[in-house]
Amino acid sequence: MKALAYEGEANVNVVDAPKPSIGGPTEALVRMTLTAVCGSDLHIYHGRIPGCEGCVLGHEFVGVVEEVGSEIRRFKAGDRVVSSFFSSCGHCYYCLRGWFNQCVSKATFGYGKHFGDLGGGQAEYVVVPLADHTLEPIPHDLGDEQAIFVGDILATGFFAAERAEIKPGDTVAVIGAGPVGLMSIMSAQLFGPARVFAIDMVDSRLELAQGLGAVPINAGQTPAVDAVKAATGGFGVDRSIEAVGDLAAIASAIECVRGGGTISTVGVPNHASGDFPYLQMWSKSLTFRSGWCNVQAYMRPLLDLIAAGRLQPDAIISHRMKLEEGKEAYRIFDAREATKIVLTP
Amino acid sequence: MKALAYEGEANVNVVDAPKPSIGGPTEALVRMTLTAVCGSDLHIYHGRIPGCEGCVLGHEFVGVVEEVGSEIRRFKAGDRVVSSFFSSCGHCYYCLRGWFNQCVSKATFGYGKHFGDLGGGQAEYVVVPLADHTLEPIPHDLGDEQAIFVGDILATGFFAAERAEIKPGDTVAVIGAGPVGLMSIMSAQLFGPARVFAIDMVDSRLELAQGLGAVPINAGQTPAVDAVKAATGGFGVDRSIEAVGDLAAIASAIECVRGGGTISTVGVPNHASGDFPYLQMWSKSLTFRSGWCNVQAYMRPLLDLIAAGRLQPDAIISHRMKLEEGKEAYRIFDAREATKIVLTP
Amino acid sequence: MKALAYEGEANVNVVDAPKPSIGGPTEALVRMTLTAVCGSDLHIYHGRIPGCEGCVLGHEFVGVVEEVGSEIRRFKAGDRVVSSFFSSCGHCYYCLRGWFNQCVSKATFGYGKHFGDLGGGQAEYVVVPLADHTLEPIPHDLGDEQAIFVGDILATGFFAAERAEIKPGDTVAVIGAGPVGLMSIMSAQLFGPARVFAIDMVDSRLELAQGLGAVPINAGQTPAVDAVKAATGGFGVDRSIEAVGDLAAIASAIECVRGGGTISTVGVPNHASGDFPYLQMWSKSLTFRSGWCNVQAYMRPLLDLIAAGRLQPDAIISHRMKLEEGKEAYRIFDAREATKIVLTP
Amino acid sequence: MKALAYEGEANVNVVDAPKPSIGGPTEALVRMTLTAVCGSDLHIYHGRIPGCEGCVLGHEFVGVVEEVGSEIRRFKAGDRVVSSFFSSCGHCYYCLRGWFNQCVSKATFGYGKHFGDLGGGQAEYVVVPLADHTLEPIPHDLGDEQAIFVGDILATGFFAAERAEIKPGDTVAVIGAGPVGLMSIMSAQLFGPARVFAIDMVDSRLELAQGLGAVPINAGQTPAVDAVKAATGGFGVDRSIEAVGDLAAIASAIECVRGGGTISTVGVPNHASGDFPYLQMWSKSLTFRSGWCNVQAYMRPLLDLIAAGRLQPDAIISHRMKLEEGKEAYRIFDAREATKIVLTP
Repeated sequence: MKALAYEGEANVNVVDAPKPSIGGPTEALVRMTLTAVCGSDLHIYHGRIPGCEGCVLGHEFVGVVEEVGSEIRRFKAGDRVVSSFFSSCGHCYYCLRGWFNQCVSKATFGYGKHFGDLGGGQAEYVVVPLADHTLEPIPHDLGDEQAIFVGDILATGFFAAERAEIKPGDTVAVIGAGPVGLMSIMSAQLFGPARVFAIDMVDSRLELAQGLGAVPINAGQTPAVDAVKAATGGFGVDRSIEAVGDLAAIASAIECVRGGGTISTVGVPNHASGDFPYLQMWSKSLTFRSGWCNVQAYMRPLLDLIAAGRLQPDAIISHRMKLEEGKEAYRIFDAREATKIVLTP
Repeated sequence: MKALAYEGEANVNVVDAPKPSIGGPTEALVRMTLTAVCGSDLHIYHGRIPGCEGCVLGHEFVGVVEEVGSEIRRFKAGDRVVSSFFSSCGHCYYCLRGWFNQCVSKATFGYGKHFGDLGGGQAEYVVVPLADHTLEPIPHDLGDEQAIFVGDILATGFFAAERAEIKPGDTVAVIGAGPVGLMSIMSAQLFGPARVFAIDMVDSRLELAQGLGAVPINAGQTPAVDAVKAATGGFGVDRSIEAVGDLAAIASAIECVRGGGTISTVGVPNHASGDFPYLQMWSKSLTFRSGWCNVQAYMRPLLDLIAAGRLQPDAIISHRMKLEEGKEAYRIFDAREATKIVLTP
Repeated sequence: MKALAYEGEANVNVVDAPKPSIGGPTEALVRMTLTAVCGSDLHIYHGRIPGCEGCVLGHEFVGVVEEVGSEIRRFKAGDRVVSSFFSSCGHCYYCLRGWFNQCVSKATFGYGKHFGDLGGGQAEYVVVPLADHTLEPIPHDLGDEQAIFVGDILATGFFAAERAEIKPGDTVAVIGAGPVGLMSIMSAQLFGPARVFAIDMVDSRLELAQGLGAVPINAGQTPAVDAVKAATGGFGVDRSIEAVGDLAAIASAIECVRGGGTISTVGVPNHASGDFPYLQMWSKSLTFRSGWCNVQAYMRPLLDLIAAGRLQPDAIISHRMKLEEGKEAYRIFDAREATKIVLTP
Repeated sequence: MKALAYEGEANVNVVDAPKPSIGGPTEALVRMTLTAVCGSDLHIYHGRIPGCEGCVLGHEFVGVVEEVGSEIRRFKAGDRVVSSFFSSCGHCYYCLRGWFNQCVSKATFGYGKHFGDLGGGQAEYVVVPLADHTLEPIPHDLGDEQAIFVGDILATGFFAAERAEIKPGDTVAVIGAGPVGLMSIMSAQLFGPARVFAIDMVDSRLELAQGLGAVPINAGQTPAVDAVKAATGGFGVDRSIEAVGDLAAIASAIECVRGGGTISTVGVPNHASGDFPYLQMWSKSLTFRSGWCNVQAYMRPLLDLIAAGRLQPDAIISHRMKLEEGKEAYRIFDAREATKIVLTP
């Protein structure tokens, strides 16, 4: 089958890989119908993730089930499904508590040996382990482009918004208006905030944010924290969301909330550790939440919201390409010439 | 001053009443700039509320503060304010717990001797007792028509929606699309439901509901509970809101929710007691919430939401008239020729 | 094998029944080591549940797994387990939302044809369907008597307390101090109430309640609602729990809460419907919750609490008998000569 | 009047200070009947708080109201009251949202010029500003020793526990078993945890913790985080509370929670900023809450809990002395010879 493989830094190629097959009763074989390139794929692309040489890439995908193991209960061959970007077992200590992202059997698709050594979704076929707790059936009336992002970036944006504890009438700042930031804005709007501020330095992203009902603030033109405070009577916002993965962005997210507020961060931190304003956190009685998305808990309600027209995650797709064009797709995504690229086989 | 007075069944007249004056340090005198006729005013109009003879009517109003008692802290003469439909003290057993609607000093404007004997707001002036905990200052950029409903029907709709425990992705049914029902729909949308069903028998109301994003169901043309179940895979909605005040409507609200769901009712029940499906409540593990609105807890966030353009409660105003036309206003509102009438002095 | 069978009104006998065997990959065969007689078994005993002729009774039991179907993941032969009183599938519309008690495949052990036609636990062996989502492994350091009640009455008491929304410092009234009422008191204490009032007419039960930290009120000697109000400054309790299943008891539970309070009822209502104080519910802004226990959601944390010594549900066991003495056990339990009876094979 | 004044590093003396008098309608004059020395008084004692020269110390006190300003509503002369350690206005942006500790008019008793320049409670008389929102009436049946700690350390411990999001059955670790840590343990028990681990290096404190139902871990004898993990199946606790104010203690609090858990810290950080494990926070999806206590929100329910016998905060009092012995009291408290010292006039 055709697949995109990582073959060294900045070197992603279309290769001819062996078609995978299911190896146990809890697995499923999926024929991919749509896949996407994710910001976190670029970490591999730049050689920052060890253990990925030769790996088939991709962890965002939808497809049609071709074959299921004997214990699969929630779908059957022929059903359309969307995948979480990681697998979970459904019955370990963490899964029983609803923390699927902490599953002791967790593995990430297309992320190399150190993340579970799973084949990726940027391929014609992919085998999904623990499939009953990793895949979600897609309602008939939803297209692939509508469904695909519930498995990663939309769920991540929703997770960010939910953990921000937004209440109707609150003000919210979202730091970063890339794909995850845009999904965070979209999701934050579901919790009834009075105003959502979008902070970024790229005008085209801020325009998309504005289209989602946010008030744009270009941090390249004005000090963003000052702008947020000026717009909130000097107090700051009730909640902030960080969707960049940069300690400076996190610092702004902390700085711009009022006393008693909440900071929710989902960007992968660019440093394992760094300076933190402990005294300010204490004197302002703040809550700081961080995390990578607990996808499995959100896929179904998000699909319902998309089917009802309340969320249009596909609006951020800027490029539709073929799997064969994968090399070029990585190049333009890395060059920031695209907001979001999807690929068909 | 001019005022609307109740002078017997179906007999509301413009009268010349003495201008009231403040009688204590916690009171405020307000010059009314906009008032409204409420569905509950019709209970007086039809002679169903004892103790209202000669009473100046009205409990929805905004105005300008003319004079304040010495202990008022939250506003001063010249400030624009909107009033809750009832007064609360802010420091009794209930107010300290945030249940202002249970305040031991509660009194309702323009509702006669048995509800605290307060003058009403359908007059040029009104005295507001316990004003720091009864009035809310209006932001400069909000018009009177935008602000007025936070003191009664919008707060009631929001209270209904909040108590319904709506979560993003839920389905919701709102029984009744009169003024309170429409406000409930508008408010429910703040909690991120996938779909809201509006049930009524009047097409014009259902059109307004549809304009607010609801799916209309005409209960005069189709059995409403069946329609709701058919649209939700046979399960029923996650949450239902009753905004009529009729035991049959409450029965439908209970009938149309799924197991584990919540019913939130805010209509004044048309019978003090009646039959209740105890076994169904138990076998389906349901939650039933009832109540009259805890207005004081919601006025400020609702004003924020209106100022931000997230709520447009004034959209339901169908008639703008003068206080002198009050008699006619009551007539057409009672005849259901108007959705909502506001009066200026 | 030996088993207790229902053979007509007030006629329960030890019989020789065929040993059951597992019939599918999601089932488990359990060798019973302890079983109990439940208040709801008496409904069958009195002939009030159709379809029970010849049925092996019992839905509270612990035991040792003898054999498991091929898809069982959470335990294996030789493990000790406690059972929920009903089975659930874990992947239907309701189970995915955490409402196991509404599972579309739900069946109750030992309750006859109309409740899923499952064999009961008052027998040497019992087959458990959908066992991964129906049984819970027992920690090594817990005895059978400590574990058994998490499958029914303790979970029910906890469910009642959790749904009552008790906050630290609240006052709580529990109507009924039978087995479920005592479990409700025990569970309510986990939520930090200032005071818990126990209302019953049987002194021995009130003594047990007092031993659990409750303030006893003998409703046979004093009007209970008046006593509760007198003890709470005239306001009433913040939360009430009804654990009887009687409309008069529910009426008291509603009557004795303050404005804004919550009523949580878990007793099986003795009438399908009856009078309900709609106007009082509305004017006091009350919440009324009813339901049968969502057992599967609580078994694990309850076992943790018992293991840590925070709950001692076995304290209510008044009689320890042999399965062969089952006929006599039913007689004395029905005669109210026992608080709770457990049987060993 | 007699008072304790700060007159330079390690130099606290009994002085003859002028009796204060009320200067406005929202103030109250309180005759002190019991006061305490707090750990944070030692920061002044050691000269670490600028602006305290000549200041009357003390922010924990109960007393009898001698005189009230004209706008006081919640108590009158002759009433017994306990004070929060800081004042709040009740109607600013923050107070209206329930965040009294962020009040724009906040001032701390006995903490010098930079904290509002209020006279302290280690004196025969103290004037309380904004008294309706700073003092709480004491129920008749509570003694001074029972009531005093709701104004500071007990409220702080409860705040820590509440923000830790403890659910029935959870495991909890409390780092530090000094006065605030002990109050945190006591408060954590109100939320129904299965087990609470107390971590300290002082055996006498660990004994007190054990008396409150905690499992003691002496961090001087065993690596505390390892011990917590070993006792929780390797996963870590669900929630941790830090009550020391030391970045190393906070690091342990983060280290010892399981994925998806919550850290709640209330100790005043000993450094304004420092290293923070951003990547671990993200990969384990943790919540980090910090803050100084929102006292005014908790005084009333805590008094109810003490009156009901659910909390015995006075159990930690180790020394009862006279105000005249204040110099000696500071010496022995600073030398860690006392757990908690109270003074009478």
